[in-house]
Formats: sequence, structure tokens, C-alpha cells
Amino acid sequence: ATYKGQEYKAEMAGSLANISKFMAEPVTDKETLEKDSDKMKTRMELMIMEIQADFCRALEAEEEHGTVFRIDRWKRAEGGGGVTCVLQDGTVFEKAGVNISVVSGTLPQAAVAQMRARGKTFRKDAQLPFVAAGVSAVIHPRNPMVPTIHFNYRYFEVVDPEDNSVQWWFGGGTDLTPYYLNEDDCRHFHQTLKNACDKHDKEYYPKYKKWCDDYFFVKHRGERRGVGGIFFDDLDTPSQEKAFAFVTECAKAVIPSYLPLVKKHKHDGYGYAERQWQLLRRGRYVEFNLIYDRGTKFGLYTPGARYESILMSLPLTAKWEYMHSPQHGSKEAKLMDVLKNPKDWV
Amino acid sequence: ATYKGQEYKAEMAGSLANISKFMAEPVTDKETLEKDSDKMKTRMELMIMEIQADFCRALEAEEEHGTVFRIDRWKRAEGGGGVTCVLQDGTVFEKAGVNISVVSGTLPQAAVAQMRARGKTFRKDAQLPFVAAGVSAVIHPRNPMVPTIHFNYRYFEVVDPEDNSVQWWFGGGTDLTPYYLNEDDCRHFHQTLKNACDKHDKEYYPKYKKWCDDYFFVKHRGERRGVGGIFFDDLDTPSQEKAFAFVTECAKAVIPSYLPLVKKHKHDGYGYAERQWQLLRRGRYVEFNLIYDRGTKFGLYTPGARYESILMSLPLTAKWEYMHSPQHGSKEAKLMDVLKNPKDWV
Repeated sequence: ATYKGQEYKAEMAGSLANISKFMAEPVTDKETLEKDSDKMKTRMELMIMEIQADFCRALEAEEEHGTVFRIDRWKRAEGGGGVTCVLQDGTVFEKAGVNISVVSGTLPQAAVAQMRARGKTFRKDAQLPFVAAGVSAVIHPRNPMVPTIHFNYRYFEVVDPEDNSVQWWFGGGTDLTPYYLNEDDCRHFHQTLKNACDKHDKEYYPKYKKWCDDYFFVKHRGERRGVGGIFFDDLDTPSQEKAFAFVTECAKAVIPSYLPLVKKHKHDGYGYAERQWQLLRRGRYVEFNLIYDRGTKFGLYTPGARYESILMSLPLTAKWEYMHSPQHGSKEAKLMDVLKNPKDWV
Repeated sequence: ATYKGQEYKAEMAGSLANISKFMAEPVTDKETLEKDSDKMKTRMELMIMEIQADFCRALEAEEEHGTVFRIDRWKRAEGGGGVTCVLQDGTVFEKAGVNISVVSGTLPQAAVAQMRARGKTFRKDAQLPFVAAGVSAVIHPRNPMVPTIHFNYRYFEVVDPEDNSVQWWFGGGTDLTPYYLNEDDCRHFHQTLKNACDKHDKEYYPKYKKWCDDYFFVKHRGERRGVGGIFFDDLDTPSQEKAFAFVTECAKAVIPSYLPLVKKHKHDGYGYAERQWQLLRRGRYVEFNLIYDRGTKFGLYTPGARYESILMSLPLTAKWEYMHSPQHGSKEAKLMDVLKNPKDWV
């Protein structure tokens, strides 16, 4: 315990030194962070703050007329808060949102029921305090040859006040939504995620790749939102320490999985037709997020939710054309084929 | 009964003479329509076909380079079908969809449960054949000074095969979504609906006006979709005959409530700022339809649903800007004030 205590103090000292590089002050005050430096909620908060800062800075570095993120630090009346960073109408990014939130409170009964249905062993009708800490981002580039990326990594902790028993789990994922299919890009993206997974468990990548294909499914159209990536939830094995190391690894893999695609394609040529197709695909993105996405729904139905932070995932512009269907054999049809029949990339 | 029979035959003869003016052949074949001429499902089908044709022709007459509706007549594998008419990228209408559907089948268990919760006295777990016939339209004009209109009128019939008992009801409504507030327009629109209601029951308009304000509510933003109109469901009083007469009156009030606003504003001047505001408001329209609208949800979750006919309600183009807020005292803020605090227009 003493050795572990020393280790956390060292981790904390490193993290606190980073605070000045964060997009804003952490949600939790410095004294509480130091006092609870060995707690997972503290370590997760500092990790996601660092991921947010690194990712935002990496995106800003790609902008060409110095557009930077707008930073909103907000509090939630019911407990906790977040830092929402949005870059809008840049030269390279049409809309980029990177949000962290650390919220606490008592679980709504609907959430308790939903989690029990998923296998959590909560007492029925219990008043359960929870903490949720997560980072979430959606990047919509301007150039249709640069894919949209989404990622989200989160930690959830529920304490039963009756016996102080704790249930905790991690969830998250990273997925790519191209407008035009570039197989090299898909391979690079998936390979980077697979490498991150393989360091922890060789079974993770195949399992979470399939979970991702199944989750990001626009059911009424029979098509996936994009070319997938990884997705998982309720991860509470093999230990809290190892699960945190895995989630941290995944979060750190976002930049190497995505930034090379931005650099490679941000100056690609395109015309009116490619822009129109991008806007139509963004309409499908909106359909998935507003109709099916659990995170969006859970967020919007949560009392006191900051809806601007949830809806920052929506594109700046989207289109819906009645009965649009790409021409047989076109580049657009080639993408649709992969969205209807997901394939293995690595 | 003979007298009533004669009357239906006369009504039918009039309707059949109109068939050549419909946008397409009715969903039900002519022989069945004639055989069942006294049945409400037949009378409703002919009424909505007529409403569709009249409304589409009235809109086409406002177009300035001869843009006409595309007409898709479709069948549903599980029973019935529909006629979807869409006019896209016109000079006056950016996207206009007018759909009729007459579908039959067995109620999904989720629908039975939902209807029982609403007070229908169905036997639990019964296999219940149903017929649903309705007309639905959403018109998104190009000029931001012309409001968007939506209306929907429907008839639902469920037969319990065990005792042949029939439950039936009507539902529907008409509502207006302006981008800029013109109080004369709101008054004209509401007055036209009120006049239609008042001919049937003086209590209808106030009751259905409030229902409309309550229903078209974007909860997470605390604002209504538009300036309302009328909305009702489960109408099965005072008699089937009288309820049908009321619904027909409402459907016939759509053109006089709306076309004068199109004629009045379709050549109004506007600039970039007004167009941008219109696109942002259309984003809110998408939020309501995909997150809250019962009809859209019920439609998309129905097996074999024609999603293109459901999603024709979405605008051609929509925008989402992070943290957009109209300037205090602006014309845009004036609209927001009414969307947050609905008022009485007549």
C-alpha cells in the first residue's frame, strides 16, 4: 500500500504539472484532486483532461489561419461540470467538438432500471450516488476527403450507501466515418486501434470491432454510420488498474489513428458533387445520433444536462434529399457497399 | 339504412369521379372501394387522396418555373401502401412532401401496449388486425419569410377477431413554424383553424391549440417548434360521422390557412443573415422530428416502413452552430420569445 501510495503521488505530481497545459482548470478543485489522488475518479479526470488538451492542440496545429478552440468551462447544478471545447468554421475543420465532463449525483430510477437490465447488481429502487467521468469528441472536417472521427472514453462508479459496495466500469470507443472510401486510411486507422488493443488482450480488437459495427447501425436504412473502429461497455476486468491502462492506451491512440489522415487529405481537390455527398452523409450522421445513440439520448433526458455540449456532435451543415441513391459503380456507391457490408480491415 | 346507403353511394360516385384528379390511383383497388363504399376506411382513403391532390396542385401553382411533384406510389409487403409526393429544389419550395398511406396488418405488441396505456380497451397479448389511413405533409419554403407548415390527419381502426368489436379513432393537426414572426400571419392561420373547429364544437379550438403547444415541444431547449395550431388524438366522439366531418373540415382548412402566407411573402426580400437563421431553425425542426415526434418514431420502428416517406419531413438543408443565440432585441429574439412563451393568437 505504501509503495502504491508513492506511485499514485508520483503519477499525481506528473499530472498536476500538466494542469497548466489543460484547456481549462479541472472540474474538481486541486485540493480534492490531491486528497483523492489514489482514487480512480481522480486519475480518470486527469487523464481525460490531458487527452482533451493534446487532441485540441493537435487539431489547432492543422488549422491554417490560426482558428482556435472556444473553451467553455461549466458547472452542473446537480453536481460536477465539464469543459467543452469547440472549433467552428475553421479552414480545415468545419466543426470540431471535444468535451470532458465529470458529473456526480444520484442515479435517476430509469438509469438504475436500465443498468440492472444490463446485469448490474443494484438493489431495486435504491438511491444510488454515482460519478461519471468521460471525454467525448466529434470532428467534422471541411474537405470531404478527410473522414469524420468520433471517440468517447468514460468511467462510471456507483456506490451503494447501505454497505459502501462499489460498482465501477469503463466504456468507450473510437470510430471513423469517411465520405469517400480510402482503403489505406481504413487499414491505418484499424491497425492503430488493433495495436493499442493487442497490448492488453488479443481478444479485445476482434470483439470490440464487431461491437462497433453492431452499435453504429442506422437500422431503418440498413447501413452503418461509418467504417467502424472499436466500441465497448461495462468493462470491469481483469482489474481496475488494467482496465484503466487499456482505456488510457485507447484514448492515446486517437491522435496517431487520425491525424495522419487529416494531414494526408486536407488539401485534396474536390468539387460541388463531393461536397453535396458529404452533406447528405452528414444527414445520416444526424439520424444516427438523434434516433439511436444511447449517449445522446441518456444525455438529453438527464435533468440539468448541458444540451449544447451533447449536440456539439452535430455537423455545422447537413442535407436530406428525398430518394437519393448514388449511381451504380460510382465512388459514392463504393462507400455504401462497405457501410452495408462491414469488412475486416486488418 | 336504405337512405344512408343511397347517401354513401352518392358520396362514392362523387369521389370516384375525382379519382382521375388524384396524384395516383388510390391504394385500394376500385372494386374494393365500391364494395366497401359505406365503410369509414374507404371514405377516409378517398378524402385524404383528394386532400393530397388539392394541396399538391395548389403548391405547384405557386412555383415559377413549372417544378412539379414527383409521385411515388408504393406497396407495403405487410399490407396496404401509399402515395408519396415530393417537390424538391423548386423556386418557391425548397422541399415539400405530401404523403398518404393506407396500411393494414396486425398491431405489433409494442403498439398494443402503448395504446392500452393510452386507455384503449384491447385484450392483452391479442393479435389485433388494424387499418390506418392518413395524410401527412411538411412544406419547407425557400424564402425565410414564408413559414413551414405541417399537417397530418389520420384514421385508425382495430378489430378484435374474437368478438368482432371495433375500436376506431381519428387524430391529427396542423401547425405553423415561422422563421420570422409576423403577427398578422399567426392570427390569420389560427383564426382559419379556429373557424373550422368552431363549426363542430366550440371547445375544440382552445383544447387542441393547447395540446399542440404541449406536443411540439423541444424539451431539452425549452422551446416550441413553432407558433402552434391544433393537435388532437384518440377522437372518437360525438359519433364516427361527426368526427369524420370535423377531420375533413380541418384538412380542408389547410389551404386557406397557409396559401395566403405563401402568396404574400414568397417575393419578400432577404439576405444571408436571414437564410442562416432559417437553416439554424431547420436544425431545431430536425431535432424535434427525430428525438420527440411520435409519428416519426412509430414509423421508423414499424417493420416494413418506407423510411423515405417518413423522412421526407426533414428539410433539404439544416445547420447546427454551437451556442448560437440571437442578439437581444433582434427579430430573431422576438421569434424565440414566442417559442418559449406561447401566446393566444385569436
